[in-house]
Amino acid sequence: MKKRTAITPTRAENYPQWYQEVIQAADLAEHSKVRGCMIIKPWGFGIWELMQKLLDEKIKETGHQNAYFPLFVPLSYLQKEAEHVEGFAKECAIVTHHRLEKDAAGNLIPTSPLEEPLIIRPTSEMIIGEAFSRWIQSYRDLPLLINQWANVVRWEMRTRLFLRTTEFLWQEGHTAHATEEEAKTETLKMLQVYASFAKEALAIPVIMGEKTEAERFPGAVATYTIEAMMQDRKALQAATSHMLGQNFAKSCGIQFQNVQGDLQYAWTTSWGSTTRWIGALIMTHSDDDGLVLPPPVAPFQLVILPIIHSEEMRKEILHYCEALKKELVGIRVTIDDRPIRGGEKSWHWIKKGVPLRLEVGQREIERETISLYRRDKGHKEVEAVSKRELSIKVRSFLKEIQEHLYEKALQFQRDNTIDISNKTSLIDFFSSNDGFVLAHYCEDKGLEERMKEELNVSVRCIPLGQSGEEGKCIFTGKRAKVRAILAKAY
Amino acid sequence: MKKRTAITPTRAENYPQWYQEVIQAADLAEHSKVRGCMIIKPWGFGIWELMQKLLDEKIKETGHQNAYFPLFVPLSYLQKEAEHVEGFAKECAIVTHHRLEKDAAGNLIPTSPLEEPLIIRPTSEMIIGEAFSRWIQSYRDLPLLINQWANVVRWEMRTRLFLRTTEFLWQEGHTAHATEEEAKTETLKMLQVYASFAKEALAIPVIMGEKTEAERFPGAVATYTIEAMMQDRKALQAATSHMLGQNFAKSCGIQFQNVQGDLQYAWTTSWGSTTRWIGALIMTHSDDDGLVLPPPVAPFQLVILPIIHSEEMRKEILHYCEALKKELVGIRVTIDDRPIRGGEKSWHWIKKGVPLRLEVGQREIERETISLYRRDKGHKEVEAVSKRELSIKVRSFLKEIQEHLYEKALQFQRDNTIDISNKTSLIDFFSSNDGFVLAHYCEDKGLEERMKEELNVSVRCIPLGQSGEEGKCIFTGKRAKVRAILAKAY
Repeated sequence: MKKRTAITPTRAENYPQWYQEVIQAADLAEHSKVRGCMIIKPWGFGIWELMQKLLDEKIKETGHQNAYFPLFVPLSYLQKEAEHVEGFAKECAIVTHHRLEKDAAGNLIPTSPLEEPLIIRPTSEMIIGEAFSRWIQSYRDLPLLINQWANVVRWEMRTRLFLRTTEFLWQEGHTAHATEEEAKTETLKMLQVYASFAKEALAIPVIMGEKTEAERFPGAVATYTIEAMMQDRKALQAATSHMLGQNFAKSCGIQFQNVQGDLQYAWTTSWGSTTRWIGALIMTHSDDDGLVLPPPVAPFQLVILPIIHSEEMRKEILHYCEALKKELVGIRVTIDDRPIRGGEKSWHWIKKGVPLRLEVGQREIERETISLYRRDKGHKEVEAVSKRELSIKVRSFLKEIQEHLYEKALQFQRDNTIDISNKTSLIDFFSSNDGFVLAHYCEDKGLEERMKEELNVSVRCIPLGQSGEEGKCIFTGKRAKVRAILAKAY
Repeated sequence: MKKRTAITPTRAENYPQWYQEVIQAADLAEHSKVRGCMIIKPWGFGIWELMQKLLDEKIKETGHQNAYFPLFVPLSYLQKEAEHVEGFAKECAIVTHHRLEKDAAGNLIPTSPLEEPLIIRPTSEMIIGEAFSRWIQSYRDLPLLINQWANVVRWEMRTRLFLRTTEFLWQEGHTAHATEEEAKTETLKMLQVYASFAKEALAIPVIMGEKTEAERFPGAVATYTIEAMMQDRKALQAATSHMLGQNFAKSCGIQFQNVQGDLQYAWTTSWGSTTRWIGALIMTHSDDDGLVLPPPVAPFQLVILPIIHSEEMRKEILHYCEALKKELVGIRVTIDDRPIRGGEKSWHWIKKGVPLRLEVGQREIERETISLYRRDKGHKEVEAVSKRELSIKVRSFLKEIQEHLYEKALQFQRDNTIDISNKTSLIDFFSSNDGFVLAHYCEDKGLEERMKEELNVSVRCIPLGQSGEEGKCIFTGKRAKVRAILAKAY
C-alpha cells in the first residue's frame, strides 16, 4: 500500500512537480503576474532574512563593508568590457523613457525618451567599477572591500521559483587589491565563506571547485563555484567567486599609485549568491511531507501546539504554554492557538518545515512532561521530555538536527558520486542515472558543448585540492592532471 | 575673530551648502554619474542598516511580516486607480525592451519591445493589491499586515542626496482590514510607530498631523505625516501613513466574505519611510564641525584613539586599548591605530559624528584614567573617567547624549513655533523668518496654492489631538476649528 504523504506527487513520482508543491504547501513564494518575477511570501522571506543575517555576519567578519549603488547601468558602461557585455546584454530590462502621457485615445504611452538607455543591473561590476576608479588613488586605499545586497534583473525565458527568475535578490561582493596574489586569496577566501555558510547555516555539503573556461563569468580570469547535490542527484551551483584579474580595472580605469610611486591597474574580484540558496535548501532536505528547515534559518525553530480537549482546561494549558515559551530564551518559538483541529495544525507546521513541535495537553501538564516531535524524523516518533530539562533538550535537539541534516546530505552526495574512467561507461551511466561523476578531464571547449548536447551533462567544476594524480582524459584520451565533476545541473 | 570650524561654509553662512559638505566630510554618500541616483557609501549605509534594524523591529512587534514583491508594475495595473496614476505616471522609469543587439555600425541598441511597458515601482500599492486580491478570500484572512524593504524610482528633476533622489531605499507597509475602524486604527498606529522611532532611534522630535487634501497621497482618503523641524527652521516630512479607504480595494478587487457571508471590499492602508531619514538626521543634529550621530544609529558609538608618542610604548598602549574595548561589551567600538597624526585622527571621527572618543596614552595608563570626549559637546571638553568606572560611564553618557540631542532639538522646535492670527503678521513673519506657524485654518485648495506661490509656504499638517478651540481662518476669516502648521519645507 502506498504511504500517504502531505505532498503529491512525491519526489520519486515527479521531482520537479514535487519541488513546486513543497513551495506552495509551505507558502514560501509564488509566480507573480509580472513576467518571470516572483513574490516571496512571509515564510519564504523570513528564511531569506535569516540567511541574509548569517551570511552578512560572515561577510563583515572578513572585513567587508556594505554599501549601495544605483539600479541603473548606462548602456555605455556595459559596453566598456567586451566579454562582459556579450554575456549580459542579451537578455536584460532596458529603460528607454521617463514619462507617461495620454495619447489621443486616452491611453497612457511612454514619452520623453532618454538620451542614453539604462539597463537594470544584471550585475554591478561596471557601476561599482566606475566608483572604484574615483575612490582609489593610492595603494593606501587598498584593499577596498565592498558588498551590496540588492535586486538584479536578467530577462529569463524559462523561470522556476528561487532557481531562475527575472528579478532576484542577492548579495554581490566587489573588491580591489594591490597585487594579483591578494586578489586570488580574496577570491578563494570568499568561496570558503560560502562553503562554511552552506554548511553552518543551511546544512548543505558543497564541493568547491573552479569552473572551466566555457562556464566562466563573462570577463573573469577564473571563476570558482560551490556545487551542491540535490536529491534528484543533479548539481546546483549555489554561489560563485570570480578572480577578475586586471580586466575590469582596465575597462573601468581603476588605477593606483603603488609604493614606488608608479601608476598601476588594480586587481579586482567579485562574488555573489542569491535567493537561489532557498531553492538549494528545499531540494537538499525536504521530504514527501514538505519543507524541512535547518534550525539556523527556521523563522520558528519550535512551535508549541496546545491540545485542548475541554474548554475548562483552555486557560491553564495556554498559561502553561506561555511559561514554556518564556523558558526557551534565545529560541524562535511560536504558540499556535488557532481554533482548528490538532491534526490540521500539526500538518501545517510539518509542511512549513519547523524543526521541533511540542504538544501540550492536560496529560502533559499532569505528568510534567512534554511530547516533542522532530521534523527530521518520522512524524510519529515522539520524545517525552521532562519539563525541567526542556530548555537543555531543545537546544541539543536543534544542534542534533543540524548535524543530522548535514550528515544525511553528505552521505547522499558520497553515495552518488562515482569515478568513471572511460567514455562508454560515462554514457551508460548518464543514460539511466544521475549523480556526480569524477573523471580525468582536459579542458576543451568544443568537447563541453558536445557533451551538453548529447548527454545534457556539463562539467560542474574542477574540485580544488586535488592530488595531481595523472590519468587519461575521459573524452580525448590525452594526459590530464585533474579530475572534473560531470553532472546534469539546474 | 571667526571660530575655525571643520565644515565650510557654516550653517549660518550657507545652509544648503553646509548640508552637502557635512555629507562629504562624513563620507556618507555621493551623486553617481547615473542621473539622479546616489551611491550610499559604507558609513552612510551603516547608519541606514541600523535604522532598518530598529524600525524593522518596531514593524514586526506591531504584527507585520516582511515579504518581497516585483520591481516592475505593468502599465495596465497603474491605470486601474485614476488618481493614483495621475500622481505617479508623470515621472517614472519605463522599461520598454528586453534585448540589446548590435546595429550595422556595431552599436548596441534596444530590441525586442515588450508587449506592455513596465514601470519601475514608484510605490507598490497596485502590485501588492493584485496579490492581496488573490490572498484574501474570507474575513479569516484579515487583517493582512505586510511590509516590504525595497528600492523605488521616481524620476526627479532636481535631486539632493538623501532628500530627493531618483532611486531611493524605503520600507512600505501595506495592510488590509475587515472594517473601516480597524484600518483607521492601523494608519494612526503606524504614524505613532514612526514618531517613536524618530524619537528613540534618531532623537528627532516630530509633530504628528493630517495632511490637507492638496497634499494627500494620490488615491488616499486621508494622509498622515510626521513633520520635523530642521536647523534652518524649515519643515521636513519624515514619514507618511495613508488611510486608503476602499479605493484601492475596489480598483484591485480585494474582496472578502464577511462573518455574515456577504462579499465586501476590504479597507486598506499603506505607510512608508525612506533613506530621507538620514537627511532628517543630518539636518537636525549636525553642527559646523560635521555630523552628529545619535548613539542608536552610530555604526561606531565609541572610538578609541591610542596616543603613541614613543615607539617603545606602542605595544603596551595598544594592548591597553584592546582591554578597554573588551570591557565595553554590547557597545560598537573601534580602535583607530592608523599611523597618522592625533589631531587629524580626532577630526576624522568628529566629522563622522561618532558620539564618544576616548584617548589613551602613557599618562592615561599611569593614572588609570581615560580622557573622554562627547561629540555633542564642544570638542575641547574632556571628562577624565577612571578605568574602573569606564563601562558604566560610557553607557550613561550614550544615554545622556541621546536625551540631550532630543531635548535640544525639541527646544529648538518650540522656540521656533509661533501662533499667528492674522494674515499681515503671517506675511511679515515669512518674509524675514522661518519656523512653524500655528494658525487657524479652514481647508481651501486654491488658498494653499496661492500661499505656496506667494510665500513659498505650505500647510505642513493639521496636528492631531487639538482641543477644537474655535478661531478665524487666517486667510478666509471663516470659522475654523483647527489650527494648521504652516512652514517652508523640503
